Amino acid sequence: MVDIVHRVGIKAPPSKVYSALSTIEGLAGWWTKATTGDPKVGGTIAFRFHTPGGDEIGGFDMGVLELTPDQRVRWRVKGGPEEWVGTDVDFSLSQSDGYTVVLFGHRNWREEVEFTAHCSTKWATFLLSLRDLVETGQGKPAPADLKIGDWH
Amino acid sequence: MVDIVHRVGIKAPPSKVYSALSTIEGLAGWWTKATTGDPKVGGTIAFRFHTPGGDEIGGFDMGVLELTPDQRVRWRVKGGPEEWVGTDVDFSLSQSDGYTVVLFGHRNWREEVEFTAHCSTKWATFLLSLRDLVETGQGKPAPADLKIGDWH
Repeated sequence: MVDIVHRVGIKAPPSKVYSALSTIEGLAGWWTKATTGDPKVGGTIAFRFHTPGGDEIGGFDMGVLELTPDQRVRWRVKGGPEEWVGTDVDFSLSQSDGYTVVLFGHRNWREEVEFTAHCSTKWATFLLSLRDLVETGQGKPAPADLKIGDWH
Repeated sequence: MVDIVHRVGIKAPPSKVYSALSTIEGLAGWWTKATTGDPKVGGTIAFRFHTPGGDEIGGFDMGVLELTPDQRVRWRVKGGPEEWVGTDVDFSLSQSDGYTVVLFGHRNWREEVEFTAHCSTKWATFLLSLRDLVETGQGKPAPADLKIGDWH
């Protein structure tokens, strides 16, 4: 199995980071504006992405597996690109030196493909968008996300 | 073994990206200004990092394993944090849709630790610094690198 991992420190209390990971409004503020669904455990959250012109170009359906306030959020991918379906996304929060540390994992890819590498870089930019949202009130959710090349 | 992978597309010819990966001046323009050594195959390049006050806080010594013009650069880590020593760093270039695509791997970590996650995120920011250097002439090498939390 192949895992993508990242670590970002955010200058804010865990409750603010947790809120950005566990509510539709929070998620829409750093990943993609087109976020809808039921963010409770057992629910499904739909993340969608669009061209600047407004055409839908894809997305992910995440089943919420765990919500431990101020500590952990876990999802299982229920719909999206075939490489993603069945993989797990995990945000673990801890505190260090005035920061809330987000330890991120997108785990259990069946194999490493070029798309894995793209998603790894893209996750880094979205986690920095999460950081910016929590620290400044302004993230960079899609369609205003940072582009990283020919695959967006 | 654990691998960090990333993928970034750069709007420039492969020769410009290769130059930024294979010369001291190029490397100093996106990773760390304190880059010295022999960038030829069989040589060792020393990358060092400093506090804003100028104190050295660490670094890496990379043995150059491969230089295939406009296609590939490979290093083996000879000195640095113990988690890094013996691991391999690999930049593979290809062309896609007007971009030079950099497929990056930092491979053969003995285990996944929190430092792996930190380095994964940090590599993403440095690869975007490489992109900025090649596309605009201005990267963000250390000590002006983007900070990602309590571990810099």
